[in-house]
Amino acid sequence: MAVGEASTEFEPVPGVKLASVPCGIKGQDQLDLVLFEFEPGSTTAGVFTQSHFAAAPVIISKDHLAKRSARYFLINSGNANAATGEAGKSDALTCCQAVSQQTGSLPDEVLPFSTGVIGEKLQVEHITNALPDLKAELKEDNWLQAAHGIMTTDTRPKICSRQTVINDQSVTITGIAKGAGMIQPNMATMLAYVATDAQLNQTVLQALLENSVNQSFNRITVDSDTSTNDSCMLTATGVSGVDCNDGPAREAFVELLDDLMRELAHAIVRDGEGATKFVAVEVRGGKAREDCLEVAYAIANSPLMKTALFASDANWGRIVMAIGKANVELDASKIDVFVGDVCLMRAGGREPAYTEAAGAAVMAHEEITITVDLNLGEAVETVWTSDLSHEYVTINAEYRT
Amino acid sequence: MAVGEASTEFEPVPGVKLASVPCGIKGQDQLDLVLFEFEPGSTTAGVFTQSHFAAAPVIISKDHLAKRSARYFLINSGNANAATGEAGKSDALTCCQAVSQQTGSLPDEVLPFSTGVIGEKLQVEHITNALPDLKAELKEDNWLQAAHGIMTTDTRPKICSRQTVINDQSVTITGIAKGAGMIQPNMATMLAYVATDAQLNQTVLQALLENSVNQSFNRITVDSDTSTNDSCMLTATGVSGVDCNDGPAREAFVELLDDLMRELAHAIVRDGEGATKFVAVEVRGGKAREDCLEVAYAIANSPLMKTALFASDANWGRIVMAIGKANVELDASKIDVFVGDVCLMRAGGREPAYTEAAGAAVMAHEEITITVDLNLGEAVETVWTSDLSHEYVTINAEYRT
Repeated sequence: MAVGEASTEFEPVPGVKLASVPCGIKGQDQLDLVLFEFEPGSTTAGVFTQSHFAAAPVIISKDHLAKRSARYFLINSGNANAATGEAGKSDALTCCQAVSQQTGSLPDEVLPFSTGVIGEKLQVEHITNALPDLKAELKEDNWLQAAHGIMTTDTRPKICSRQTVINDQSVTITGIAKGAGMIQPNMATMLAYVATDAQLNQTVLQALLENSVNQSFNRITVDSDTSTNDSCMLTATGVSGVDCNDGPAREAFVELLDDLMRELAHAIVRDGEGATKFVAVEVRGGKAREDCLEVAYAIANSPLMKTALFASDANWGRIVMAIGKANVELDASKIDVFVGDVCLMRAGGREPAYTEAAGAAVMAHEEITITVDLNLGEAVETVWTSDLSHEYVTINAEYRT
Repeated sequence: MAVGEASTEFEPVPGVKLASVPCGIKGQDQLDLVLFEFEPGSTTAGVFTQSHFAAAPVIISKDHLAKRSARYFLINSGNANAATGEAGKSDALTCCQAVSQQTGSLPDEVLPFSTGVIGEKLQVEHITNALPDLKAELKEDNWLQAAHGIMTTDTRPKICSRQTVINDQSVTITGIAKGAGMIQPNMATMLAYVATDAQLNQTVLQALLENSVNQSFNRITVDSDTSTNDSCMLTATGVSGVDCNDGPAREAFVELLDDLMRELAHAIVRDGEGATKFVAVEVRGGKAREDCLEVAYAIANSPLMKTALFASDANWGRIVMAIGKANVELDASKIDVFVGDVCLMRAGGREPAYTEAAGAAVMAHEEITITVDLNLGEAVETVWTSDLSHEYVTINAEYRT
């Protein structure tokens, strides 16, 4: 299940080549190994999971990124190489060294990434044996294959491009992402790779990425669970020659980037495990943005709210319950609640004009916006989520069996 | 579904009479109205929901309890009288006045309670019309009928008794509880009523109740959702003549009370919506109890952990993930994890001797203990939870339809 249609169109990014091959981790000739190659001089920014059990490749990637500019990303799906201790780090480094030998780069110019089952030893030989084929496949137009190659429980690839003209030159941003469960990113999502041909220095790039993630991947939840492998990378090849480090060029680039990042993040929710609804929860009128976020996540993560969404049931009592448990100061007698444009609650009580028929009509839609006005201030936050269906239970009860 | 067998045996409490009748809120002649009558001179303690949307009867009960000793509890099921604003409070007061007229007590000697659908107007006339029949039914041995009368999505009544001899006299404690979903109590559970014939002054009684709730109802979760109507009441009639306010008598009473409260709280989890497993999550070796509790709830409320429990899947990666997202300081490289007596993780990595077969064998049990040792200090906390099954989704997708 997934909500809405997904586009598979994209624009290649000058300065970026990719390849994806099956290496045998997922089996049945499924694509499960991906290589990115970036033009020398590219800059790369990254944000990573805050989990106490950050996976081995996350630790190695952060370390390598701090030392040098990245030339290669090596990504496998099917095995997360997480909770694997020192052996896991050693396995990730072995893979980096193998890429280094194949390509003539330095080992710490290679960033490793993994996604899949936690706690299993990485199949290093499967990966190193496939590297010659992988390198031979590197091409600028392999983005869609790469989007397939990083999938686990995803039902479809997530890919998105934006182009605009800045200083009379065309600038492209293209990104791919994966993730369907274990989704409440904390500083990043499962895996996302975005590249542009704009010129951006590393400090600016990191700032733009962090800002953009806080409006996109850090505002989505499928099941409130945070992955050990979350990584979101942004690379600028500079091949377009367009300097976007400041001024109007930077503003134009930020607008383009934020738009693309939001679409990729939404693509994860639309393909959330078992999702039949795509739901925006907007909380406004807060004294602080943190308060709005707390209330929005209380609603978006409530199992009772999510099962009501699955049933298209305008069960406004569950919205009330979820707001009520949020750990923030608020005045219940001031709160208004809307689903779509239908007012359910006014000033803390049932809106007299509300009818079950009106609520049922708006809940029947595949895409729903729940709006809560706390009427205490000016702050606003929005998070995006999916519903809790039988399919979610089936997927997660049967994942390993 | 429910886990294990439930006893329906109980001992009456001298000084307490009860009755339950159908008044038409739940329909089909189901018991949905309950009256407790306490001997004059009884003391009552209570803890209530911390929800911002505390229901009207919760607000009235807290107010009445602060003014006088309670003589009557009036409880309806099927309608929560929550998020009903000023009209809801007025409806609750009307019910108290009607009980007052029937019994010759004062209106604020009556505490009202409601449980059921949120946001609907209370059917006051159904309740007031049934009061004469209800009063006529008052008897000491009607505890089991009362346990039925407070049920909503519960599949079975929850009732428990304890007796002991203190100062050569028999002392009895008997309690009933209800709740199956919207269960992560915050200072109380959905509804629980416990009474004893011990003599206890109100201050001591309140202290004993709060302490006991923090080891029982405040340590359970079915779905992480906190009700608007949570109330847990403890009444001491003093009819036994046994003074339990201090010394060894108090100690003996506390032991009995804590034991009974834990059993009632566990009964709610065992009958949790869709429950097929009863799971204790014990986190030890913490620097502070709050840290242990945070980690325990991160595991107990993780949808991915709960679906793995439903599938009897020893998916230890999900335990790792859940610990990893807990918002506390910890050292991943020190953590040990056990399911039953099987060690899955030692010092942050997979235990070398662990086998999937051993994990599968222990996960197949209906009752499971997950133990996490943080190895940082001496603090310990335990919470109890159930799994996330298809039945949970079915119950909550179809509750109002």
